[in-house]
Amino acid sequence: MAYGGYSKYVDLRMRVEPEKYLTAVFYVEPAKGKSLVQAAEAVAAESSIGTWVKLSTMQDRVLQKLQAKVFEINRNGIIKIAYPLEIFENGNAPQLLSDIAGNIFGMKEVENIRLLDFEAPKKYVQSFPGPAFGVEGIRKIAGTLKERRPHIGTIVKPKVGLTPKENAAVAYEAWMGGCDFVKDDENLTSHSFSPFEERVVRVLEAADKAEAETGAKKMYAPNITASADVMLKRAEFVKAQGGNCIMVDVITAGFAGVQFIRGRNLGMCIHAHRAMHAAFGRNKRHGIAMKVIAKISRMCGTDQLHIGGIVGKMEGDEKEVREISREMRKLGGCWRKMKPVFSVCSGGLSPLSIPFLYKTLGRDIIIQAGGGVHGHPDGTRAGAIAMRQALDASMRGVSLKEYAKGHEELRKAVEKFGK
Amino acid sequence: MAYGGYSKYVDLRMRVEPEKYLTAVFYVEPAKGKSLVQAAEAVAAESSIGTWVKLSTMQDRVLQKLQAKVFEINRNGIIKIAYPLEIFENGNAPQLLSDIAGNIFGMKEVENIRLLDFEAPKKYVQSFPGPAFGVEGIRKIAGTLKERRPHIGTIVKPKVGLTPKENAAVAYEAWMGGCDFVKDDENLTSHSFSPFEERVVRVLEAADKAEAETGAKKMYAPNITASADVMLKRAEFVKAQGGNCIMVDVITAGFAGVQFIRGRNLGMCIHAHRAMHAAFGRNKRHGIAMKVIAKISRMCGTDQLHIGGIVGKMEGDEKEVREISREMRKLGGCWRKMKPVFSVCSGGLSPLSIPFLYKTLGRDIIIQAGGGVHGHPDGTRAGAIAMRQALDASMRGVSLKEYAKGHEELRKAVEKFGK
Repeated sequence: MAYGGYSKYVDLRMRVEPEKYLTAVFYVEPAKGKSLVQAAEAVAAESSIGTWVKLSTMQDRVLQKLQAKVFEINRNGIIKIAYPLEIFENGNAPQLLSDIAGNIFGMKEVENIRLLDFEAPKKYVQSFPGPAFGVEGIRKIAGTLKERRPHIGTIVKPKVGLTPKENAAVAYEAWMGGCDFVKDDENLTSHSFSPFEERVVRVLEAADKAEAETGAKKMYAPNITASADVMLKRAEFVKAQGGNCIMVDVITAGFAGVQFIRGRNLGMCIHAHRAMHAAFGRNKRHGIAMKVIAKISRMCGTDQLHIGGIVGKMEGDEKEVREISREMRKLGGCWRKMKPVFSVCSGGLSPLSIPFLYKTLGRDIIIQAGGGVHGHPDGTRAGAIAMRQALDASMRGVSLKEYAKGHEELRKAVEKFGK
Repeated sequence: MAYGGYSKYVDLRMRVEPEKYLTAVFYVEPAKGKSLVQAAEAVAAESSIGTWVKLSTMQDRVLQKLQAKVFEINRNGIIKIAYPLEIFENGNAPQLLSDIAGNIFGMKEVENIRLLDFEAPKKYVQSFPGPAFGVEGIRKIAGTLKERRPHIGTIVKPKVGLTPKENAAVAYEAWMGGCDFVKDDENLTSHSFSPFEERVVRVLEAADKAEAETGAKKMYAPNITASADVMLKRAEFVKAQGGNCIMVDVITAGFAGVQFIRGRNLGMCIHAHRAMHAAFGRNKRHGIAMKVIAKISRMCGTDQLHIGGIVGKMEGDEKEVREISREMRKLGGCWRKMKPVFSVCSGGLSPLSIPFLYKTLGRDIIIQAGGGVHGHPDGTRAGAIAMRQALDASMRGVSLKEYAKGHEELRKAVEKFGK
């Protein structure tokens, strides 16, 4: 018998009209004693209109119109489900997750289940705002529209503990060395040693100074992560101080908060840190793939998004990161008029990571190094210079070893980080 | 060499002063080639002040004051880390997660890592508001202060698709049968077939009618899950219509949104659905244990929280659910003045689940059944009556089989769901 007493949760001959259904791809391992088909139909039921038993309150209309359907089942456990678009609320990211990424992970019918991807009808995707700036908007701020090179960024380190003054001094050095972008770390918000407002004022002053002295535009992403109202207050403060960017830990804050901030159209780009994503994204047999989070993040309107560093201290395989990076730049189709996202590579990177990342992911990425900048033997400025030298070398197709010969900062970086 | 070049991330002789440190318990499987000690110190570093390399920007003061320390390492992979309280921002739940549940899940030093629990200093926990109503406040609304029995609730089913009128009719039947509480499902928000405002008006009308006819107080939790501003608008609408409760999908919306809503002190209790928790909570070797989410949820101020049904359609072992239920009712210590949370058992339950849940979890729980009410052979009202009969039997210590002899609705429920 079909799950919950209703059949038709599986229809392998269904023709899925792409504008009428949101489709999701899952990897499913059925629980002991269950077949893949049984597990698949339980998932389709639980994430649309069904439950474990036949209902006295069911309406034929609901059954006919709103039932999600499994339309593909593969022997390797990959299944595809089509959800009638009516189930989803326009422009509501938490509701999307509650639907296709909600209860299903806990169902006894499955041993493991992983949401790998989803495709949504154009009109649904378009009900979200998307990034306000996107790649072009950020290049305009940073003054790299012509160059079209990857941006070089740093995270001020140590992660927490510096005073606003110390923090600003580190940021200044990084910018003077050639960083385009400086950001707070994911666990730095407002603390006794670094009150948010004071930090923002100091670091933006340092940005102004670095801009004046270098002639290059500089960006700073203070971490506003907090309750939604506090985030808004902090974002407004950054705006009032002339800031051009804010950072949100999008997973730990949640998309209700992200959408709220984006909806205020504050005229600053949103840098999305993904701290905690690997709690549900790392196990390849269960949870939610980063690609899903990345698409939702783009829909919600983050301009920059951490997608993994491949070669750094964090897990994340090359194929997946490449795929996400491509998806973040897609135009047309469901992404029509939706600006592309500047992908951020971060986590244990150094000048030595740059040739590979440039070759693999191209120009529209932000390459961030924290330890890889501030861990340079000659300090932050030299570390930032080495990053830019490594980028120059990569763009000219010269090996770092070769380029290091005439570039002292890079030479020392290669010596230190190449161990 | 210690992670990132700094030693002292491990100090097994440390005396942890409970009011100065937040402590967290992890299960850790080191990556291949790494020892448990190496993995543990990498985790302590990454979630406090450290990174993979020695920094030119490190300050002695920061190293001495803000370094997290591993103070216990057990052979079974259980480790404990003490975080100086200064690292955390008062009353900021997303920041807490970014700290102790952030980047660590993706680190290459670990193969698997699971955050099992945390203990926070009293002054930190007290910087959060906690529930506005809690168990007593909800009992006051529901009129069960004297009886002190478990509350009986239902989720209107099918999950989505009913019109507001149909939805209200189902709710009315449930209340007339004896349900205390009716709620929307986690994926029902505002849709073409059921606009939020219209549904709230209709269902609250049905609640008034049921109250007038039964003399018992009734509660309804409409699902406000959306962007934070939309959630607030919806919550205010519910309040204006005389509602006494709202529901939020706390994981898919995120704690930035939950804290925002709680902070508005709208005078309605907050029902927390945990959809998506099992994406990171199910695998016992990786991710975040539900107990952690439950504690944060209580701190943020949700009055009711789904903790698992043990015997239903969702995974969740008895020991864990009992432990969470106890934690949600703890008073004193760090929970001083913080109201206890009404634990919600839900997911594939029926009248047959009640004796076990009552015996296992006691009186301060809400037992919810969707299919177990609306799947009754004689419909919703009979299903709700059967739930109350099963509760009566449980509280009198009579077996359902025995009690069913004189109670027709329960007899039919036992016959149907006992298969």
